[in-house]
Amino acid sequence: MQSFKELTGQFSKHFDQLQFPEQPNRLYDAARHILEIGGKRIRPVLCLMGNELFDELHQDAFHAGSAVELFHNFTLIHDDIMDKAPIRRGNPTVHMVYGETAAILSGDVMLINVYERLNKVHAKYQKKLVSVFNKAAIEVCEGQQLDMDFELLEPEAVDYDSYVNMIGLKTSVLLAASLQMGAIIGGGSEGNQGHLYAFGKNVGIAFQIQDDFLDAFGDPEKFGKQQGGDILANKKTFLLLKAFELCNPAQKAELKALLASNPEDKVARVLQLFRDCKVDEWAEKEKERFTQMAFKNLDDIAVLTSRKQPLRDLADFLLNRQQ
Amino acid sequence: MQSFKELTGQFSKHFDQLQFPEQPNRLYDAARHILEIGGKRIRPVLCLMGNELFDELHQDAFHAGSAVELFHNFTLIHDDIMDKAPIRRGNPTVHMVYGETAAILSGDVMLINVYERLNKVHAKYQKKLVSVFNKAAIEVCEGQQLDMDFELLEPEAVDYDSYVNMIGLKTSVLLAASLQMGAIIGGGSEGNQGHLYAFGKNVGIAFQIQDDFLDAFGDPEKFGKQQGGDILANKKTFLLLKAFELCNPAQKAELKALLASNPEDKVARVLQLFRDCKVDEWAEKEKERFTQMAFKNLDDIAVLTSRKQPLRDLADFLLNRQQ
Repeated sequence: MQSFKELTGQFSKHFDQLQFPEQPNRLYDAARHILEIGGKRIRPVLCLMGNELFDELHQDAFHAGSAVELFHNFTLIHDDIMDKAPIRRGNPTVHMVYGETAAILSGDVMLINVYERLNKVHAKYQKKLVSVFNKAAIEVCEGQQLDMDFELLEPEAVDYDSYVNMIGLKTSVLLAASLQMGAIIGGGSEGNQGHLYAFGKNVGIAFQIQDDFLDAFGDPEKFGKQQGGDILANKKTFLLLKAFELCNPAQKAELKALLASNPEDKVARVLQLFRDCKVDEWAEKEKERFTQMAFKNLDDIAVLTSRKQPLRDLADFLLNRQQ
Repeated sequence: MQSFKELTGQFSKHFDQLQFPEQPNRLYDAARHILEIGGKRIRPVLCLMGNELFDELHQDAFHAGSAVELFHNFTLIHDDIMDKAPIRRGNPTVHMVYGETAAILSGDVMLINVYERLNKVHAKYQKKLVSVFNKAAIEVCEGQQLDMDFELLEPEAVDYDSYVNMIGLKTSVLLAASLQMGAIIGGGSEGNQGHLYAFGKNVGIAFQIQDDFLDAFGDPEKFGKQQGGDILANKKTFLLLKAFELCNPAQKAELKALLASNPEDKVARVLQLFRDCKVDEWAEKEKERFTQMAFKNLDDIAVLTSRKQPLRDLADFLLNRQQ
């Protein structure tokens, strides 16, 4: 049983050996660019952890982990084009450096490489592994489309449950599937795979609620982002959508007016409205609700409690829980 | 042994049952749009023919055929975005109808669905099939990138062999791989698979030379396209690249001047130059050279000659050869 940090080190050693060809250089430089920007490699490490929950680490978990990491980076390249995002992790995005054509194509070629990785795993569980992965991959695309569809709507027109569904697809199913893929490799039962998948999905949603909360109320120095960035961008978040449910007609009118304009004190005034309608308290409770579901899922997995410790530690770390 | 037409009918019956989900409708309407525009389904039928060359038709050839057809349509959606093409087969392109975001995403989700199809084939040859497919799929992306790279260069700067290589990747390797995938399912030997792959690749290049030739010299009524469309678009073709090799310095200067301008008689004058430097004769010979190589490849396949008849007929039809 290894910690997240130890597994990250092991995975990176494997993943960094993965080489794209030199030519056509525009295509593969674009692919290398997104991988070099880095990231925390959370998904592949979840794959390793899912494996280690049930059995010793198998080489196939590294192949499956590489597949999900390549897939995640493919989505970043294409999402940045769709969002017209100029910056990612402090670096210019792929389409800004290499143009949109190379960005679309490098994402495409990366997605094909995902399946080269999945084609290396043992034949006995290849079909199941590819099937679990494909389901998640399709859902991620569907989540991105729903997100784009929601962008065209007024926040009031977006139903809260539909929003939770969209966020789940866009951000959580790949975490969940990564864990399940590891469990398949480790020989976990279908029942245990299901609990582990649900754990990953609930942690992902709790994490997203926290992310929205910290963007609004977090200490910008600690959080490393501009406070209220989502508010300034009129981004649909858990907080904004719930505020429309919780606030009274006068507050609602004020919120709508603030969204339609850009006064200098926009962030402060929206935050005050959030506090007035207690959406901050609600968010903490909602995050806790998903967190508790996640820990219940973890409890339900029928392996020795001690084997679950690294997953518990990781969830505590991601969800910023003091132990 | 069935003809191309019979196999097309059989494949369409299978393929048309393939359903995308209803929601998110923007995503899947975009995917349905490209499939409904149609096309000749040549690649999947090649898959069926590759199978039938060696054995009775197997259900897996329909899965593999659906995979290559979905892949082909995925490339059409993304290529049309890159080429900023408004029209395909007389219909507005996907990004024109559904926007670029849904077009990128519907291509992505279609590519994932390719691998859902490939995940249905018998485990005994799944790895080999996926590996042959992935190699071709990666090469198609590389070919598209090279094509885009060449677009930025003067025609004189593009080396003829590099151009043939690019065209081979962009248009022929998927035809070749479709045949080989069928052969794998039919139980063809590695050697026979290789000959069949080479046959597909050479037919593909011969077809492309013919396509370029007909665009310039064909009867527009018979060919169904505007004569000289490639010339008006300054498109790099076999003819244009070879003309720069074959013509004398004065002709070269005239050709460059014509490319840099748009006189009313541009098509006629470029065609005259093509004739003067005998690039039309060269193209017919070059097409014949690739055709002969293809038929040699077909001869080399160690099965009864009568089994090869449908492939010979198809090549004759595609390459417009009177028998």
